[in-house]
Amino acid sequence: MTLHMISLGLGNKEDITISGLNAVKQCSAVFLENYTAIMNCSIKELEEFYQKKIILATRELVEKESDKILEPAKSENVAFLVVGDVFGATTHTDLFLRAKEQNIEIKIYHNASIMNAIGETGLELYKFGKTTSIVFDDNNWLPETPYNSIKENLERGLHTLCLLDIKVAEPSPENIRKGINKPEPSRFMTIQKAIEILKKIEEKQAEKIISDETLAIGIARIGAENQIIKSGTLKELAKVDFGKEMHSLIIPGKLHEIEEQMISTHK
Amino acid sequence: MTLHMISLGLGNKEDITISGLNAVKQCSAVFLENYTAIMNCSIKELEEFYQKKIILATRELVEKESDKILEPAKSENVAFLVVGDVFGATTHTDLFLRAKEQNIEIKIYHNASIMNAIGETGLELYKFGKTTSIVFDDNNWLPETPYNSIKENLERGLHTLCLLDIKVAEPSPENIRKGINKPEPSRFMTIQKAIEILKKIEEKQAEKIISDETLAIGIARIGAENQIIKSGTLKELAKVDFGKEMHSLIIPGKLHEIEEQMISTHK
Repeated sequence: MTLHMISLGLGNKEDITISGLNAVKQCSAVFLENYTAIMNCSIKELEEFYQKKIILATRELVEKESDKILEPAKSENVAFLVVGDVFGATTHTDLFLRAKEQNIEIKIYHNASIMNAIGETGLELYKFGKTTSIVFDDNNWLPETPYNSIKENLERGLHTLCLLDIKVAEPSPENIRKGINKPEPSRFMTIQKAIEILKKIEEKQAEKIISDETLAIGIARIGAENQIIKSGTLKELAKVDFGKEMHSLIIPGKLHEIEEQMISTHK
Repeated sequence: MTLHMISLGLGNKEDITISGLNAVKQCSAVFLENYTAIMNCSIKELEEFYQKKIILATRELVEKESDKILEPAKSENVAFLVVGDVFGATTHTDLFLRAKEQNIEIKIYHNASIMNAIGETGLELYKFGKTTSIVFDDNNWLPETPYNSIKENLERGLHTLCLLDIKVAEPSPENIRKGINKPEPSRFMTIQKAIEILKKIEEKQAEKIISDETLAIGIARIGAENQIIKSGTLKELAKVDFGKEMHSLIIPGKLHEIEEQMISTHK
């Protein structure tokens, strides 16, 4: 039959599209991708809403045991649910390609993703340059890519969206080395932590890209009832309590007058 | 009461979210923005689906007579519907700012936009640089911005999304000069036309950015049942009949292996 790759949007269970919901209801197995983003509601709530049992799809399941999803899709309708958009911030091209190889029919249902919902900040989407990710500086590992991306975008007057690291139920590097698959508690990078990391890289590179006075926009739980969009200097934003996951940070480039006005509504 | 700015997504009437549809149903006036993008279904179909009368919002209404939308929103629930995402390819920051000034409560409902749905092509969204627009070369007017944006993105290995011009019920420049507000028939730029324009600019600038052999991806009606995603050289794509509006064109930058695999599924 068909693998239905269904995007759930960003806010709550009701941010699925009608077409997406109709598809879920036709499916005999429903997987929820559970390691690159998480819903603002419980699995139980979702199950009641869909009237379907949900199988949590860990990274291991999707990347190494994808046949558990693909085999049934050969004879039945199977749903693979993704928070945001299926091909948004994290893409599920792997699963798509494997399904294609096996001649499984695929249907895609799009929805809002962090990649386009940030238009709500008032920054024009077409003026964003390359998107970057800030990852945890565990064990003194400090990738400088985000700093360089921001720099290159700024040189062209472009905005930078920084996606912040998320680790859901992943084993520690130490346990991976030992071959022990014991999930660590989930972690989500906060805006405060992201600012700290950018400032650390600034200390090393010293190209005057990031300072306390750098204008930025912090975004938490975009699309949800309790979303926060806040503009200010990095010094100001570092003091804001943005609450629980997920957070993102934008470093704006050159601002149009109307973008400035929009940002000022988020002061 | 509240101005509900509701995104309709890209495909058909059922690509609205549950939360968006619930909001429409609460509203006493429903406006549909009708000049930057259009639905793949008729207004009548939408009216039956919502069980509401729809008022078409022309550019004139939104930009010059926005009080017709904002006045009722002071005492009632008013819906302002936008194909794609409210803050997607075209943003409605103007209306948002005017509503804010008048202390009207605003609620935003996100959805898929061309800006994120293009993830379906298999190109990673985070590797897109600045987005550009290709406008009709009427009266020998040939803005070279898209060419320059593609060039700058390619220098950094980044992909470029080219949005193609759309003119819905706009008066001709000649009539505007004469003060005659007579709408011309609607026009949508095809991928063929966009390729022709890029090649024209190449002839002028001659920086060898665009040629018959340039790899590109043509996209028509993304999200709709009859969508087309097709990769090939510009020479090949210029021969494809992509059918009716709306079309977009992507000039990819440096490709990962997995992006190449994804693109080859669209050959």
